[in-house]
Amino acid sequence: MKITIIGVGLIGGSMAMKLREQHFADYVFGVDLNENHLLEAKELGIIDEISTLENAVKNSDLIIIAIPVDAARKILPTVLDLVNENQTVMDAGSTKLGIVNAVKNHQKRNRYVAFHPMWGTENSGPKSAVSESFSGRAAVICDQKDSAEDALSLVNKVAENLEMNLIYMNADEHDVHTAYISHISHITSYALANTVLEKEREEDTIFQLASSGFSSTVRLAKSHPEMWVPIFKQNKENVLDVLNEHISQLRKFKSALEKENYELLEELIKNANRIRGILK
Amino acid sequence: MKITIIGVGLIGGSMAMKLREQHFADYVFGVDLNENHLLEAKELGIIDEISTLENAVKNSDLIIIAIPVDAARKILPTVLDLVNENQTVMDAGSTKLGIVNAVKNHQKRNRYVAFHPMWGTENSGPKSAVSESFSGRAAVICDQKDSAEDALSLVNKVAENLEMNLIYMNADEHDVHTAYISHISHITSYALANTVLEKEREEDTIFQLASSGFSSTVRLAKSHPEMWVPIFKQNKENVLDVLNEHISQLRKFKSALEKENYELLEELIKNANRIRGILK
Repeated sequence: MKITIIGVGLIGGSMAMKLREQHFADYVFGVDLNENHLLEAKELGIIDEISTLENAVKNSDLIIIAIPVDAARKILPTVLDLVNENQTVMDAGSTKLGIVNAVKNHQKRNRYVAFHPMWGTENSGPKSAVSESFSGRAAVICDQKDSAEDALSLVNKVAENLEMNLIYMNADEHDVHTAYISHISHITSYALANTVLEKEREEDTIFQLASSGFSSTVRLAKSHPEMWVPIFKQNKENVLDVLNEHISQLRKFKSALEKENYELLEELIKNANRIRGILK
Repeated sequence: MKITIIGVGLIGGSMAMKLREQHFADYVFGVDLNENHLLEAKELGIIDEISTLENAVKNSDLIIIAIPVDAARKILPTVLDLVNENQTVMDAGSTKLGIVNAVKNHQKRNRYVAFHPMWGTENSGPKSAVSESFSGRAAVICDQKDSAEDALSLVNKVAENLEMNLIYMNADEHDVHTAYISHISHITSYALANTVLEKEREEDTIFQLASSGFSSTVRLAKSHPEMWVPIFKQNKENVLDVLNEHISQLRKFKSALEKENYELLEELIKNANRIRGILK
């Protein structure tokens, strides 16, 4: 099968590597605005051919859009304009309501499957791509009723080849869940980095002292704004809801400490410990 | 050398394992209020002998206190009462001002070295102990001028055998830095867990969707209150300072989103990205 990867970065690159390893893809076109990424992806053997969008789409069975969510929303209608009834388009974005609404009334809406693999790192670019990234993780397909059966079945096979566990839900549910499960972690991580950078002027001390706990909590703060500003923008309402809840949870800790109410502090911690039973 | 480990849990157990592997310790006494931990530690070969405090201290060259910081502060004067001029006592607690103040006027203050290895996990108990835990990480010695030279030199050797990099600072500086570098991460992680648990009633969804980013940010929320309430209590003022700063950093994200000021959002993220240059 011939596939096009639009956006040969961390996600698109990792998907291409794995799909090729599995002999699911036997020819990969790469499309990207970043010429360096294209050259790197070609050199790393992630793609076979650097191509224009038109040429790549025309010659592919499957087109995977793996670019920031604002750009994905913009390009999807153009890609759908180019495909025929035998081609399938999927994306990999972290917000879904914006993109499905953008093609709601598109004549070829049913050739598109809204997809979200629940994996990422703070790194970017084809050099960060790893073929095993997705194995064992969850992937979401949204609003499956709006996709053609053969398109759904192809994306199912993609998920299978990526070794991911598929979950189905509506785009609006998806965006609520990801606000909690992914987007808020990035905001707390950014804010934590800014907190420390604000007060800890002696950067050497941070570097030397940083415990493993701090490093893992602040890891996501290395994530790029090119990817995350569009996500927060598209999921603004849900992210704000969660952020307000999070600030009010932090205020409970603050109040317990200020009032030296250590029983309350213990309760708050014990409640948080329940996550142990849920997240292995 | 004979050593006593008071508190044969994650930290004490890991230290004993490594010091024994390095042939630095050839006999290890275990003292703990938790009888199960003692039996487990004995079975795992972490300690040679379950002992009373008095017997263990009397027969050891080095006594390592690795229990929650409130209990450590309470027991240290008793241990110092029991030692002679050839014995050395060290702790492993995450706050330092409280414990050094507790023995400020103790006649044998100079037999004690205030020590803090910058490592931990969300787990506890001797079964979680790992001998390689400390390798390559930082360890802090506080107020070294108050310790005898031979005691300092012994603790230096301990750090060397644990393969840790030593840093020296005052106890009050230490407590400010750890508030930023370790304590606040735990509060944000607890609050994040509570945020998600509050709103995401469908626990299955959390479990299935949780991305790697969420898991790493929320990992610390599994940490036990027995250890952390005393830390927050002893470092209350510093933790509150950092928590206030953190809430105000989160409010900046909130305000940028509410006002749809995406340039500001991008700036906040770019500022946070500076952590990339500091934390590898």
